Amino acid sequence: MEAPTNITIKGILGLLTANTDGCKKLISLGMGDPTAYSCFRTTLSAQNAVLQALQSAKFNGYSPTVGLPQTRKAIAGYLSTDLPYTLQPDDVYITAGCTQAIETTLSILSRPGANILLPRPGFPIYGLCAAFRHLEPRYFDLLPQMQWEVDLKAVQDLADQNTVAMVVINPGNPCGNVYTYRHLQEIAETAKRLGIVVIADEVYGHLAFGADPFVAMGVFGSVAPVITLGSLSKRWLVPGWRLGWLVTSDPDGILKSPKFVERLKKYCDINGGPATFIQAAVPAIVGETQQVFFTKTINLLKQTSDICYWKIKEIDCISCPSKPQGSMAFMVKLNVSLLRDISDDIDFCFKLAKEESVILLPGAAVGLKNWLRITFAVDPSSLDEALQRVNSFCQRHSCN
Amino acid sequence: MEAPTNITIKGILGLLTANTDGCKKLISLGMGDPTAYSCFRTTLSAQNAVLQALQSAKFNGYSPTVGLPQTRKAIAGYLSTDLPYTLQPDDVYITAGCTQAIETTLSILSRPGANILLPRPGFPIYGLCAAFRHLEPRYFDLLPQMQWEVDLKAVQDLADQNTVAMVVINPGNPCGNVYTYRHLQEIAETAKRLGIVVIADEVYGHLAFGADPFVAMGVFGSVAPVITLGSLSKRWLVPGWRLGWLVTSDPDGILKSPKFVERLKKYCDINGGPATFIQAAVPAIVGETQQVFFTKTINLLKQTSDICYWKIKEIDCISCPSKPQGSMAFMVKLNVSLLRDISDDIDFCFKLAKEESVILLPGAAVGLKNWLRITFAVDPSSLDEALQRVNSFCQRHSCN
Ligand SMILES: Cc1ncc(COP(=O)(O)O)c(C=O)c1O
Ligand SMILES: Cc1ncc(COP(=O)(O)O)c(C=O)c1O
Repeated sequence: MEAPTNITIKGILGLLTANTDGCKKLISLGMGDPTAYSCFRTTLSAQNAVLQALQSAKFNGYSPTVGLPQTRKAIAGYLSTDLPYTLQPDDVYITAGCTQAIETTLSILSRPGANILLPRPGFPIYGLCAAFRHLEPRYFDLLPQMQWEVDLKAVQDLADQNTVAMVVINPGNPCGNVYTYRHLQEIAETAKRLGIVVIADEVYGHLAFGADPFVAMGVFGSVAPVITLGSLSKRWLVPGWRLGWLVTSDPDGILKSPKFVERLKKYCDINGGPATFIQAAVPAIVGETQQVFFTKTINLLKQTSDICYWKIKEIDCISCPSKPQGSMAFMVKLNVSLLRDISDDIDFCFKLAKEESVILLPGAAVGLKNWLRITFAVDPSSLDEALQRVNSFCQRHSCN
Repeated sequence: MEAPTNITIKGILGLLTANTDGCKKLISLGMGDPTAYSCFRTTLSAQNAVLQALQSAKFNGYSPTVGLPQTRKAIAGYLSTDLPYTLQPDDVYITAGCTQAIETTLSILSRPGANILLPRPGFPIYGLCAAFRHLEPRYFDLLPQMQWEVDLKAVQDLADQNTVAMVVINPGNPCGNVYTYRHLQEIAETAKRLGIVVIADEVYGHLAFGADPFVAMGVFGSVAPVITLGSLSKRWLVPGWRLGWLVTSDPDGILKSPKFVERLKKYCDINGGPATFIQAAVPAIVGETQQVFFTKTINLLKQTSDICYWKIKEIDCISCPSKPQGSMAFMVKLNVSLLRDISDDIDFCFKLAKEESVILLPGAAVGLKNWLRITFAVDPSSLDEALQRVNSFCQRHSCN
């Protein structure tokens, strides 16, 4: 039995939390779960849709393992509005959150000797899944000075005939990037040249508040086949509902080979899937949520990311190469040479947790040593207070 | 990419349903989803517990991936009442139904070259999971003349140093068996001799209505380590809620090696898991469901299984080696030599579907050619009608 050895975000955050001394109120800028704050509450209409489906007692039974037909249809319609072509219900597989969509994708793509290209920094679940599925992960860099764009030269150099796919997270966790139309097109063209699938993790889809709008990777599905992964978790602020999807955004039908589809369907038979009554609520959820709910979230994220950006600017030993443009977190660089008694990002986070009861995620957990990930899906006053404490901590430990 | 080639129950039932001509009302005795019938409706108190958890808006966020602490505690308490020792919350991992508990167990037990012993007839998800995880399945027989007991001699002969576990489904699907204390003890002793884990699928736990009471395999957890799998699906009649568990019923802590626990926890990080608010309702569901609800289900299953048993006795070409004692389905033997123009169980089921709009599952789908699986979690009048049609069908196709 081999246990994958990757650090998990939850694991390290647990250790950090255990390291606080309880003198000050704990503020975590570590995890991407906004529901801890009442300002990030889901819309009542979504909650009511689930309530009604449950109360109807019509959805206590099994759904087809690929998802209820009406749920697949609703997600196909929802995602098609971002695309130059129309997705069919059959393109959509309903999963237990985006996490299970990731797990399913990596499992069905794995074969002996295969490798997969993953972004660094990235979302550690990909590495963990790859390890469980004996899929060799190869990491390409995201470029901090280029708004965290993909190093396409590196992608080209890493790929070989055993490469099955590359992962693109946009809007990005942990970087807060929102890629331009142009860059996504370059990614698709690179994938086409390499003959690989693009796995587009769009769990933060539409959570963009910078200059560039969110563009779905599926727009380039006829350049290279795209598997789009997403969920209600972030945009509807309900990560606990575990409702996600895996979608073949592939107008040329390269992913519709009977063998691939059969394998995917069989995989759905074994993976458990989400609750039927939550699935049944999806048509109402994606069809009836008011724009004002989305706008409120976006405005709040813009506000909190701005607070972060400007407060971080005041701290000497921390710098931010690019302003966050989307998602709920971004990366900042730690300059340990300006600190007296801090050896690296992990040391920084442990001492910060102990002295200030503030949790930040060490960059090492997402593949980038001596960086920090800051989650800004936090209510503004807590965020302000937390960054104030980070500032005092840095001053206290400063060389001069 | 290898696609496992096993027939899935859902696949074959889909084909059978497509083969009906719509003249008569379709009655399916194929799938184990009782919620299609209003007599098998869950208790309002369980539904209300979920409603309240949802309405509180306190459980929209992520749960720990192993499950909410209160949920693990409630399941530990619930299962401990069947055991001579007390399970701890840490022994319990909450999953998206028993299906995900199966998938998780097989994934964490798999290693290069390993094999697993599976019952025949059995539940096909095990074979499908094993194929995805490159775990070699080896099948031992259940003995129809011995109340579907495990052929322990065969188990002994199949096992080698690469065998990691054997699967025991009790109460049994597809056989309707309920094993005695004595037989379960023999199974545990065999597993001990072979140095393997017993995977105890108790998704039908407590659904026993024959002479022998349900005994949890975990009772013998100190003879051999037991991994108990279960869910709310069957006993609470809510398969669509996708709430299950994987429990190490292992008082001697053989499965508590740090490496095994770490691997299991990491697996939970990637598998998606069930909705948080459904988890939050579990303490109320297992703590407050009235005995009368369970009794009603048991009485109904006893009644419908009796209808099946006696109606089948009237049909010449079908025989039943043992009366169903539990679960929601049982196996009957088809004697094709008494039929004029039926070649085998699959042919029987397709022609039956076409001519009578009655769906039965061919035994081939669960590993036993020329048998049939009949689900009796069906309302009594539909069941009566369906078996009447099976009888006419058999008479019409009889040799004499
Ligand atoms: C990039 C990325 N992908 C996937 C997920 C998992 O999403 P879900 O909660 O829908 O499983 C997350 C969660 O934070 C994420 O950041
Ligand atoms: C033997 C057996 N195990 C597991 C399962 C799956 O249970 P769940 O619906 O909780 O995923 C079933 C469902 O019919 C079953 O018959």
